[in-house]
Amino acid sequence: MADLQRGFPKMAKAPRFIMGLIFLASLALNLIDLERHLHRTDVSTSKGVCLEAEAEHLNHMAAPAEHHIRERRIGGSALSSDSVVNLDHGDPTMFESFWRTVGERSTIVIPGWKTMSYFSDVRSVCWFLETEFADEVRRLHRLVGNAKVDDGRSIVVGTGSTQLFQAALYALSPLDGPEPVNVVSAVPYYSSYPAVTDFLKSRLYKWAGDACGFPGDDSPYIELVTSPNNPDGFTRKAIVNGTCGKTVHDLAYYWPQYTAITEEADHDIMLFTVSKSTGHAGTRIGWALVKDEEVAKRMTKFIELNTIGVSKDSQLRAARILKAISDGHEWQVTDGTERFFEYGRRMMTDRWERLRVVVRSTGRFSLPEFTPASCKFAGETTETHPAFAWLKCEMEGVEDCESYLKSHKILTRSGKHFGVDIKHVRVSMLDKDEIFDLFLERLANL
Amino acid sequence: MADLQRGFPKMAKAPRFIMGLIFLASLALNLIDLERHLHRTDVSTSKGVCLEAEAEHLNHMAAPAEHHIRERRIGGSALSSDSVVNLDHGDPTMFESFWRTVGERSTIVIPGWKTMSYFSDVRSVCWFLETEFADEVRRLHRLVGNAKVDDGRSIVVGTGSTQLFQAALYALSPLDGPEPVNVVSAVPYYSSYPAVTDFLKSRLYKWAGDACGFPGDDSPYIELVTSPNNPDGFTRKAIVNGTCGKTVHDLAYYWPQYTAITEEADHDIMLFTVSKSTGHAGTRIGWALVKDEEVAKRMTKFIELNTIGVSKDSQLRAARILKAISDGHEWQVTDGTERFFEYGRRMMTDRWERLRVVVRSTGRFSLPEFTPASCKFAGETTETHPAFAWLKCEMEGVEDCESYLKSHKILTRSGKHFGVDIKHVRVSMLDKDEIFDLFLERLANL
Repeated sequence: MADLQRGFPKMAKAPRFIMGLIFLASLALNLIDLERHLHRTDVSTSKGVCLEAEAEHLNHMAAPAEHHIRERRIGGSALSSDSVVNLDHGDPTMFESFWRTVGERSTIVIPGWKTMSYFSDVRSVCWFLETEFADEVRRLHRLVGNAKVDDGRSIVVGTGSTQLFQAALYALSPLDGPEPVNVVSAVPYYSSYPAVTDFLKSRLYKWAGDACGFPGDDSPYIELVTSPNNPDGFTRKAIVNGTCGKTVHDLAYYWPQYTAITEEADHDIMLFTVSKSTGHAGTRIGWALVKDEEVAKRMTKFIELNTIGVSKDSQLRAARILKAISDGHEWQVTDGTERFFEYGRRMMTDRWERLRVVVRSTGRFSLPEFTPASCKFAGETTETHPAFAWLKCEMEGVEDCESYLKSHKILTRSGKHFGVDIKHVRVSMLDKDEIFDLFLERLANL
Repeated sequence: MADLQRGFPKMAKAPRFIMGLIFLASLALNLIDLERHLHRTDVSTSKGVCLEAEAEHLNHMAAPAEHHIRERRIGGSALSSDSVVNLDHGDPTMFESFWRTVGERSTIVIPGWKTMSYFSDVRSVCWFLETEFADEVRRLHRLVGNAKVDDGRSIVVGTGSTQLFQAALYALSPLDGPEPVNVVSAVPYYSSYPAVTDFLKSRLYKWAGDACGFPGDDSPYIELVTSPNNPDGFTRKAIVNGTCGKTVHDLAYYWPQYTAITEEADHDIMLFTVSKSTGHAGTRIGWALVKDEEVAKRMTKFIELNTIGVSKDSQLRAARILKAISDGHEWQVTDGTERFFEYGRRMMTDRWERLRVVVRSTGRFSLPEFTPASCKFAGETTETHPAFAWLKCEMEGVEDCESYLKSHKILTRSGKHFGVDIKHVRVSMLDKDEIFDLFLERLANL
């Protein structure tokens, strides 16, 4: 089985008729296991496969969340063909294979006496921001050219971009407004936005749903713009045209492995995170580039009240990781390590090409189509390869794509969580090789 | 100046009449600098001295906070006698001197590929809790005997105990209550509670002030019990006796360096933090011991929605630090390092003895008096040496103790932030030696 999976990437390069034959053979072999596929839940054999990812499944609150948590499994041995394939979440474990090739350049060593204080740099707007981390953030943006950093704007560090998103809502909402400020985002929007906005029932702000059709009158609102968008991968711009609106740009996926870098983004508040840029979700480090210093101060205040700052250890680690990426691109690193964004583009290109082959071969699904664009970072025209596949069930008689795939032990996230129809599901493209391979195999065999 | 400060600890052991003479001589010498003391703000000469500590000054929101932030200073050279002494905050930098004596046993090394996932242990109630950290938490509590951990209760890790405090409010508040739940704490209460409870204007809970006098009727409430108490150091118990009340016990200071460990605490929700137990404020790691699994799940949900988990790097570091402490006490460590709690008790005993000498010699202030108690951990009767001195100005004509001390360049936190009179101030006892020495010298010279 493991050999079969390792061989699978090569299949994507094969002519379609050979692939078709292989799929038919595979289908025949799998008929034997069909009963098990549908009626038995095995104890998982790999952490990645059966981890139910509540982390990003934030709009499944209370009871629905529990339902998913019960399906989490963990194990240690090799995958089996009837393992549950969990691609509901966006755990970016794919990148681990890259970081295993990088040696000491990406290792941090922190002695017991270091960074014990609450404070990092009290001269900074964000007093808990480690200078080393801020320097590497600026350096990486200069290298990639994806966001303006040299125009005096502030950096605010957060415990992931989720905390920074809440900090932005707090910073942009009047403290003494008569009504909570409406928070909107165009569908399909990131599934966490509604729950994260509303879980504390704040009188400062409230979730108001789809930005499309939201009246652009003179009442205050906050529009969330995720670009490239989660879940569908398209580039976006703000769409509400009110006189009292503010925007928060979540640019978590605006990196060369996912999309062409067409311009240096220059928005009022731009959010980034190492989870999606480098794959370090567990470090919980995000950063905001903020144009207005007063807004940056209020975001800092939120984080001060919420968590009295942000882990220094993770800031140091993130600095080290970003430095390793920049060093790799700017220097001739002689240890044979691939450059990070070249690795990322290669992996995402390979996965998307293979997924499109399978989707076309089944005739049962569809995927978004993207227009290639000139990437200033790569210096050439590049394809869009989002971190998630926004898959649509095209079969007659299948209305609920999530349930259909779940019956085949593929866990995805239904369009309903993104404010749209249940014909769509979001599928993570960032899991480990063996999980992704098993997903393609399972999809091909449907 | 540096020599004078280093010599200062010995003065505390001298007879009082000699000390009086020294203070008079010191006072005369300092008259020369009086004008500067009162009318000039120097650029600080040590990070610790002039750091204005907003971190814990959380009830100074918006404009008041800015006022304090402007006074923050940073520098690199030696202290001068007219430096601002900032003991407003509780930055536990005193402990750095201990950790500098511990070598590799307290150092963490994290390679670039490690703990990249959102998930730690999906079988745990708290799915982002690192097993290594949880194990060391349990081990340390067993060693110290300050809290029950072996009765099946859950551990929830947080980005400092501040996040866990909010998680507890969320977990204990009905989601569909007609009114926000009242949150109370007996005065003097921790100055952050009001602001942290109210900053998002939640409809789930609201700050309701002093627990003393709060009606113990049949409406729901949450009582916060800090024991030993911040700011005054006294041991506390819940005081509201309602039928629908819940309690949250903040036991951040229930460690042998501060107070006698008289019993294994056994409350429903108990909060701890490395900031005060080991001095690692910058790691932002706290933990909750939670009796009811459903409450632990809801606290976990809060942290999932708020920050999608807690820094893995800081959990690994905290595990290493706690392990070094337990190893030091349980084994015969041969590297000559002092045992942590013995170091802590020695330092706090020395500082409190010296502070009491100065306070008595001036006749201008008073301090709380504590009854010694039998400490099960130390195996002897020990004194109480809180992390903060709750100092009262006893001089006629001085109503506002914070302003009075500030005019002498000693920054403290007024009693008004703790819900009581402005005759009291809270003074950190955990700053670095040179800062604490300068504080005593300044106090003696008033």
